[in-house]
Amino acid sequence: MNEKILIVCSKSHIDLAREYKDYYKIGVERGCLDLIKAGLPINYAVGDFDSVSEDEFKEIEAYSDELVRFPAAKDLIDGEIAIQYAVSRKPQEVVFIADGSRIDMTIAAVGLVAEYDVILRNDDNYCYLLKEGNNFVPYKEGYKYISFLSFDKSLVNIRGFLYNAENLAVSWKSVNATSNEFVDKVGGNVEVFSGQTLAFYCN
Amino acid sequence: MNEKILIVCSKSHIDLAREYKDYYKIGVERGCLDLIKAGLPINYAVGDFDSVSEDEFKEIEAYSDELVRFPAAKDLIDGEIAIQYAVSRKPQEVVFIADGSRIDMTIAAVGLVAEYDVILRNDDNYCYLLKEGNNFVPYKEGYKYISFLSFDKSLVNIRGFLYNAENLAVSWKSVNATSNEFVDKVGGNVEVFSGQTLAFYCN
Repeated sequence: MNEKILIVCSKSHIDLAREYKDYYKIGVERGCLDLIKAGLPINYAVGDFDSVSEDEFKEIEAYSDELVRFPAAKDLIDGEIAIQYAVSRKPQEVVFIADGSRIDMTIAAVGLVAEYDVILRNDDNYCYLLKEGNNFVPYKEGYKYISFLSFDKSLVNIRGFLYNAENLAVSWKSVNATSNEFVDKVGGNVEVFSGQTLAFYCN
Repeated sequence: MNEKILIVCSKSHIDLAREYKDYYKIGVERGCLDLIKAGLPINYAVGDFDSVSEDEFKEIEAYSDELVRFPAAKDLIDGEIAIQYAVSRKPQEVVFIADGSRIDMTIAAVGLVAEYDVILRNDDNYCYLLKEGNNFVPYKEGYKYISFLSFDKSLVNIRGFLYNAENLAVSWKSVNATSNEFVDKVGGNVEVFSGQTLAFYCN
């Protein structure tokens, strides 16, 4: 399928209406309110909705084609239910907007990128999973750094960036892989031999 | 040695003067300014100091017993040099204050907790490495949740919390281990059989 899906969990300054107008839109909890604020209809609203007021919930209901309320005591972290539903639609792309101050939740969100092959985005970060084999990693306006990290120790070649390396073991912290930079606003190449390698655009 | 060390990389609302008065104090980059603001002398200042003005640098120099300036093009992420120096003093405890919006840096900082057995702290999180064997995890005022995560898949028993489990494989996201809660403001126990398990207090 050619469907692209946007999942909104958190507030951001991203122009949702401009960038994601044609996406199938899923709102998670208060993320529904951000879709509404952007003037976008919600295709699928999901959450326990404990974090919204009764009036907000009514507004979300009114803007949603479909709403699924699940109980607060749940096994999956917020957002994973939305990702599982999104992935079940076999889309071409899933963008997951999430942000917050909790480090455990941040790590869990990055784990979801690796597990479900979705894009994690917020005001300061754009993170996705590289494929095994060669990956062209394009320059993206608005980001200074590109980092490569892995939870399970991957093996890669990094070429065409400011810092390059051959047969580099990438972990949660890797010389030549963290805070790398683009040269002349052109992309570079990352060849993944084994393991799951995540790319992070950030500032 | 009984020395305790505080490393300050980032601004926070933590009352450094009250909580860490008797610690050996290391300032990293602009973290030096936070120590000065708290009225605390700096025992060891470290960084490339590209992020401070000339006047700020002079102030830092004046407040520091020792200052080590390293070149900007470096292999180690900011703060790791400070941690390596701290650990070389064989202290009883190292607290590392770091915060920021970059997810790659957040993950790298958590990796440093696992690698060097230091405590990572900021306004919203308190993270440390559990030991192999039994760990009493005390209730801490001001935090609602306690999460357990592992980069390398650890095996644990979790007892005495709201959610408990036997022989649980803990990864970057674990049912019964993320967003766990204390019962009656009393601590619980985590027995680590294998792997590196990190505890996160957060809100």
